Amino acid sequence: MDFNEHTATKAVQDSFAGTHDPRLRELLSMLTRHLHDFVREARPSVQEWEQAIGFLTAVGKTCTDTRQEFVLLSDVLGVSMLVETLNEKEGGTESTVLGPFHVVESPPRALGDSIDLVGEGQPCLVTGRVLTPAGTPIADAEVDVWQCNEHGFYDVQQPGIQPAGNGRGLFLTDAEGRFAFRTVTPSHYPIPSDGPVGRLLEATGRHPYRPAHIHFIVGADGFIPLTTHIFVAGSPYLDSDAVFAVKQSLIVDFPESDDAETAARYGVSAPFRHAEFDLTLADATG
Amino acid sequence: MDFNEHTATKAVQDSFAGTHDPRLRELLSMLTRHLHDFVREARPSVQEWEQAIGFLTAVGKTCTDTRQEFVLLSDVLGVSMLVETLNEKEGGTESTVLGPFHVVESPPRALGDSIDLVGEGQPCLVTGRVLTPAGTPIADAEVDVWQCNEHGFYDVQQPGIQPAGNGRGLFLTDAEGRFAFRTVTPSHYPIPSDGPVGRLLEATGRHPYRPAHIHFIVGADGFIPLTTHIFVAGSPYLDSDAVFAVKQSLIVDFPESDDAETAARYGVSAPFRHAEFDLTLADATG
Ligand SMILES: [Fe+2]
Ligand SMILES: [Fe+2]
Repeated sequence: MDFNEHTATKAVQDSFAGTHDPRLRELLSMLTRHLHDFVREARPSVQEWEQAIGFLTAVGKTCTDTRQEFVLLSDVLGVSMLVETLNEKEGGTESTVLGPFHVVESPPRALGDSIDLVGEGQPCLVTGRVLTPAGTPIADAEVDVWQCNEHGFYDVQQPGIQPAGNGRGLFLTDAEGRFAFRTVTPSHYPIPSDGPVGRLLEATGRHPYRPAHIHFIVGADGFIPLTTHIFVAGSPYLDSDAVFAVKQSLIVDFPESDDAETAARYGVSAPFRHAEFDLTLADATG
Repeated sequence: MDFNEHTATKAVQDSFAGTHDPRLRELLSMLTRHLHDFVREARPSVQEWEQAIGFLTAVGKTCTDTRQEFVLLSDVLGVSMLVETLNEKEGGTESTVLGPFHVVESPPRALGDSIDLVGEGQPCLVTGRVLTPAGTPIADAEVDVWQCNEHGFYDVQQPGIQPAGNGRGLFLTDAEGRFAFRTVTPSHYPIPSDGPVGRLLEATGRHPYRPAHIHFIVGADGFIPLTTHIFVAGSPYLDSDAVFAVKQSLIVDFPESDDAETAARYGVSAPFRHAEFDLTLADATG
């Protein structure tokens, strides 16, 4: 039987029959079916197919050691967030995408230290606890944080302008499960838009911005690691994040405070902004 | 409403609402639905998603001016052939994929000329006519042919070893619609298998071979251009072409002949192989 619109999918799936790894065989079989379904429905012209090949090639050629354009493409198509959502574990704080800027190790810092190594913006205090689903504090939990500065840039985007490690820190919670660090309130920022994904956004009338957020990876023995953000309440683009990563439960108030006792305790000058929230880890045995 | 498994697809489709080009908007909307359906069914782990991103990145980085690994990926997934099949026009010889080796212009040659510039293999004569669907010969039709040599290599794969233009020719049919050229019988050959697509074939137990064939693009005023192959009857891999391009109607006998009159007429030495077939163009107004 010739390869045609009706025999195509089975022919390609059959060609993968000798795949040793059963999961790879399953994934390729599903991919073939959905990809062929798309082509049969879209009926691209040969010219459109050539344009698609050219686009994917340009995405690949834009990737470098510090830039991952395929992750960006996955992000703006909602695929990264869908994968994250499908892998979410019940019982803890909601997760969201890792994003492309966790490319260097966060420097270990003591509780209360500043992750803002520049000191030009309004001070911001971030405090909270790591808890079990039952609300019990978890001591010695690892809290890995990274954020952009008040102008919307991560340290790795501005080598020589920002000190390495600016906006990054690795903390351990105290006996009451508490974490605390000083910083500046992060800004909203555009994802890199000077490549093929940026051209796609422009052709589709989409802006490249993400609302202001701080990234977290939290882990502790016996619990499932949590990758998430805290979004700054009131930030622009909370309702149109270019990578679809906002969840309502992750939006946190960063109110201005002039509480002298807290200012003295953490060594910040009033008025400062103060975000206070807890992060809950799902039980690994649950 | 948060982005979740159920709201994801509409959220991403809605983000493309401002796309100026209606066809681009339609294609992105369909792509989003089928891509999300695949992810929802496959439920990849975050590690599997990272492996997929890594594979696509490697495919992009393997592309050069003379190598198109994304076309190869499209080929081995049957997508290239499916697109070709969906765009096929009724009434003419069946079409098949263009393939990645039509990267240089074929040199114009006179009818009866040889496209084999080396002369080490057994001579092969290729003759036939270009016809309308009603069987009327088409004079002055353009017949663009390219093929690998008897060892399975195209000229562009062996610069400095094969002369440029070896295996290639651009002919015009005569008043009776006839074309004729001398060559060597092409060999079956492997698609380039030293990149990520080759590793995919290896992981899935698939061989990289294509059965022996000659490529054709035929055009004439008032007719739809035809992109196809003629496959050599009896070649290995006719039933397992790595790119799924074989159609039964395109398999042609290349019998050995010692017909002295034909040998004298075309200037070949007997015994020679002789492929004789007609190519039919669909009417552009039909
Ligand atoms: Fe970020
Ligand atoms: Fe070929």
